[in-house]
Amino acid sequence: MANKLLVLQSDFGLVDGAVSAMTGVALQEDPTLGVHQLTHDITPYNIFEASYRLFQTIDYWPEGTTFVSVVDPGVGSDRKSVVALTETNQYIVTPDNGTLSYIKKHIGIKAIREISEVKNRRENTEYSYTFHGRDVYAYTGAKLASRHISFEEVGPELSVDRIVELPAVETKVEDGRVLGAIDILDVRFGSLWTSITREEFYTLDPKFGDRFEVTIYHNDMLVYQNQVTYGKSFADVRLGQPILYINSLYRLGLAINQGSFAKAYNVGVGPSWIIEIKSI
Amino acid sequence: MANKLLVLQSDFGLVDGAVSAMTGVALQEDPTLGVHQLTHDITPYNIFEASYRLFQTIDYWPEGTTFVSVVDPGVGSDRKSVVALTETNQYIVTPDNGTLSYIKKHIGIKAIREISEVKNRRENTEYSYTFHGRDVYAYTGAKLASRHISFEEVGPELSVDRIVELPAVETKVEDGRVLGAIDILDVRFGSLWTSITREEFYTLDPKFGDRFEVTIYHNDMLVYQNQVTYGKSFADVRLGQPILYINSLYRLGLAINQGSFAKAYNVGVGPSWIIEIKSI
Amino acid sequence: MANKLLVLQSDFGLVDGAVSAMTGVALQEDPTLGVHQLTHDITPYNIFEASYRLFQTIDYWPEGTTFVSVVDPGVGSDRKSVVALTETNQYIVTPDNGTLSYIKKHIGIKAIREISEVKNRRENTEYSYTFHGRDVYAYTGAKLASRHISFEEVGPELSVDRIVELPAVETKVEDGRVLGAIDILDVRFGSLWTSITREEFYTLDPKFGDRFEVTIYHNDMLVYQNQVTYGKSFADVRLGQPILYINSLYRLGLAINQGSFAKAYNVGVGPSWIIEIKSI
Repeated sequence: MANKLLVLQSDFGLVDGAVSAMTGVALQEDPTLGVHQLTHDITPYNIFEASYRLFQTIDYWPEGTTFVSVVDPGVGSDRKSVVALTETNQYIVTPDNGTLSYIKKHIGIKAIREISEVKNRRENTEYSYTFHGRDVYAYTGAKLASRHISFEEVGPELSVDRIVELPAVETKVEDGRVLGAIDILDVRFGSLWTSITREEFYTLDPKFGDRFEVTIYHNDMLVYQNQVTYGKSFADVRLGQPILYINSLYRLGLAINQGSFAKAYNVGVGPSWIIEIKSI
Repeated sequence: MANKLLVLQSDFGLVDGAVSAMTGVALQEDPTLGVHQLTHDITPYNIFEASYRLFQTIDYWPEGTTFVSVVDPGVGSDRKSVVALTETNQYIVTPDNGTLSYIKKHIGIKAIREISEVKNRRENTEYSYTFHGRDVYAYTGAKLASRHISFEEVGPELSVDRIVELPAVETKVEDGRVLGAIDILDVRFGSLWTSITREEFYTLDPKFGDRFEVTIYHNDMLVYQNQVTYGKSFADVRLGQPILYINSLYRLGLAINQGSFAKAYNVGVGPSWIIEIKSI
Repeated sequence: MANKLLVLQSDFGLVDGAVSAMTGVALQEDPTLGVHQLTHDITPYNIFEASYRLFQTIDYWPEGTTFVSVVDPGVGSDRKSVVALTETNQYIVTPDNGTLSYIKKHIGIKAIREISEVKNRRENTEYSYTFHGRDVYAYTGAKLASRHISFEEVGPELSVDRIVELPAVETKVEDGRVLGAIDILDVRFGSLWTSITREEFYTLDPKFGDRFEVTIYHNDMLVYQNQVTYGKSFADVRLGQPILYINSLYRLGLAINQGSFAKAYNVGVGPSWIIEIKSI
């Protein structure tokens, strides 16, 4: 059952009025909603980032929170508009374009319904084809969060198996080494967040202070190779030194203490960026 | 009658404490107010942008919402501080420096009152001359939004006819062509939003898929000329292709699908940027 | 006694999910909290800025407001986590790394308690060493703001005399001149905010319209020297002209009307930047 919290995410930025229009539409539906912003600085059109930021935050919100995520390069195409109910009883309102990938894989989705635009589209917007974030997603999210409609009233059920999913790199755990992808940056600090979970890394039986050989490839080209210490936190190495650590989502991270690893070595993110950790 | 929603806009940015001080001042007046941010990234001193962003969002907020807009290059001069009541029963608290132009023209203003700084200025700020956003505008906005004062108690009534208005380009509708200004950008995506309304454009009797000759002039110098397809939404043309469309405010827009029209052709905004649409 | 307002500040930026995770953790503790953002654009690791932004805003929030400030280059080291109770009855939850300096000096601190991580750390975060902002600070702040714990239940009392303080430049008031530091910028507009208070400047007996000789040194090197008019507000001088003024915190400021003083003369901030004002 929805609580009265609505959390908005998009690639719209905060420089113009788009996010405020979405917020207002939600409060027109129910002025007592608590409307919060996840981030609106998703790289334009970057569906993977949208998916990851939902995964990064959703567990820290109360059960029953409704998320609206609008990174929608296909607005106006025939991509579907859906609401997902997660295994942890949160709602996500979004285009079905891959935004749900990371959530489906790591949190789980119980059920999906397609938004009926006949019933759940803002009135008098029938000539507006470019801002579903305001006319459909924020509007439907607010109706759901305020319990003016139930999940069932969103529209017809779809098969969870058939939602759009982005390609993902499978982590390889082998004798003495682990391989994964560099999923995303801790943007402000330039740390790399990998797809390798704490459990996967712990197959190497690491102790704080141990050193590992870290190699980064971009499309099979060597980008970085060095021995790096595994520590609890940045302060375990000296200023400017690299460190392997378990990040706040219990995945392996690679940082420079008070520096930017990503900038220092021109490292990017996504499935073409592979990281290998080897016992020495 | 004011509801308890207060929406703040400024050119202060979010990097320092200015917006938080304004928000706090409002909550000191009434901790139960719902305080929301429109945008604080208005280009410094750009009054037209402030005016447009209000116009872009105001209709999407509940009736009775109070807006505070502080783009105030003349702070400390003799420009007036006012509250406008719109035809749609919203309040706008702002310096009278042109910020109300777009609202007056496209939404309508019922009445204007000058803020009495004797009654409606925060106590103990008599030596503060540079931050009316905090000491006068947020403070008065909060008193109004919380119904601690009525609109009449703001101060003496002024004539709506005499508020400061920015110069505007009149749209020309002629046989087979329409001329208007490029008002503003959809900043994050680089799309151009023109002053030409859907009704004005429809005098050309367009159908989705039709092509039009689009010409852009800057101070009478030719900047762009090409045939462009009219579509419902970006997905109606291929990646990288230009498209004419009706934007979310029912005005004519010009975009590149997943590209930035403004950057691609170095197009700017304002009354010196004219766009012409011709039937072919 | 805490009211139900929680104000968050950090150097995390708003580009990823960190601030949203902190906000969610607070609302998990109590969904009726009013959670607000001070700024999250503190320059990474800049403790002085964090201290100043708290000072800049705290007086404008209702009594009993709880602030959480997380600029924490020493996360994972043995720096303490504390809650301060100010003389004005606000709470500040922060690492004890200098963030409280400006508050202690200019507002006053009644009492400090160390956060007991046994009692006041989020459950199931025992392997997370890098995000105390979420696991300890937002969590403890929310418990305090919602009155689920009292100030006494935060943990053991510490001596206010022994908190970490950043070095500060003492203002010198001499016959016919005043010397202080350039503390910080009004970032968006490039104005310099000095450490010289209105009272200190008024020992020079200034009248609006008087001119003063202003000299700026960086590490004893001359950076700027000119005669500048003292005015009420920017509009008292012509566009592009410099002006001395009393800023919104009742300290001496130096600006260019609709220009950036900091950019024009490459002026920075901090204890190595000294400004001298001399009567002519």
